[in-house]
Amino acid sequence: MDNETRARLEKQIDFILELDKEKTIFRQTSLSGHGRKENDAEHAWHMAIMAYLLREYADEPFDVAKTMLMILIHDVVEIDAGDTYAYDPEGKKTQREREEKAAERIFGLLPEDQGQELKALFKEFEDGTTPEAKFARAMDNFQPLLLNNSNGGGDWREHGVRYEQVYGRQAGTRKGSKILSEKTMEILEKYHENGTLPS
Amino acid sequence: MDNETRARLEKQIDFILELDKEKTIFRQTSLSGHGRKENDAEHAWHMAIMAYLLREYADEPFDVAKTMLMILIHDVVEIDAGDTYAYDPEGKKTQREREEKAAERIFGLLPEDQGQELKALFKEFEDGTTPEAKFARAMDNFQPLLLNNSNGGGDWREHGVRYEQVYGRQAGTRKGSKILSEKTMEILEKYHENGTLPS
Repeated sequence: MDNETRARLEKQIDFILELDKEKTIFRQTSLSGHGRKENDAEHAWHMAIMAYLLREYADEPFDVAKTMLMILIHDVVEIDAGDTYAYDPEGKKTQREREEKAAERIFGLLPEDQGQELKALFKEFEDGTTPEAKFARAMDNFQPLLLNNSNGGGDWREHGVRYEQVYGRQAGTRKGSKILSEKTMEILEKYHENGTLPS
Repeated sequence: MDNETRARLEKQIDFILELDKEKTIFRQTSLSGHGRKENDAEHAWHMAIMAYLLREYADEPFDVAKTMLMILIHDVVEIDAGDTYAYDPEGKKTQREREEKAAERIFGLLPEDQGQELKALFKEFEDGTTPEAKFARAMDNFQPLLLNNSNGGGDWREHGVRYEQVYGRQAGTRKGSKILSEKTMEILEKYHENGTLPS
């Protein structure tokens, strides 16, 4: 390979090795029946396959390949910024700033063109207004909901979360898919009624 | 939602929860600097992003979105069949049969159309003859190579693997990308010369 290709490939490899750290960023969601928390890499992998399989339930036409890539890279910033739990109001206040700084550093490892592309894709996810971002955010809500439901709502119980908080958090699914939102509400009502999610 | 949609969605959710088990199937590759082995879900996530970023090095034009999906699901069968180490000749003898049986059961959880589609994609990966499968298999070789290189070749040392075995195993990269194969050979030669990979 020529020197230009070599220099470009080395930057790509630096980024790829940096990505490896995402496997050590743990979320607040437990694996189904397996007793440990899941990490960001596992979460993104799971969501990307879900986006493909559940694409028929999106409210608007969207580009599923773009959405899968968006999903795969949406938590890369947490390598620097850490996972901010959905029901942590203090963490939420500084989340955006911490994550934007992280995006600059981490996507900045890539060759300029690819770094800009992934940074824009991450920002599109954060803004949540395109059909792709809306469906990606629906998956970001629906994936932990399914795991938590398979565990009898244990993650909510552990954190003492209330029904209204979870309902608010599920706005992502409501904006992306009526059908998945209907399924979400069935699950939430069940835990509301049995007292796992008190008002 | 109507009853037909509900029944279809329930099958999709069953498969999605089954996928969760892939996060507990561990490989023989160690994370970069972090001291534990990686699991199949993390490996697939990493490979899918790599396929996108390194697509310019493929020897033939290929459909990157299809390749990413192929990569994301290529190890699902290991939920039943387990991980077969690349340098385990006994395990290799029964691998294909064990994995085909697993594909029937696991992809069979999905609605018929989606189950057939993913089973065909898995088979395409296994056969390794299309441009998509060739690049996916190149990623399947190149991803653990990068991690192992970042750890000074520790995985090879742990298993007492020889240079010729690793060279043979890297056929996947040779069939998919001349440039990534050149990089692979630079890495292998380094470990051959310093005695980590003896002849």
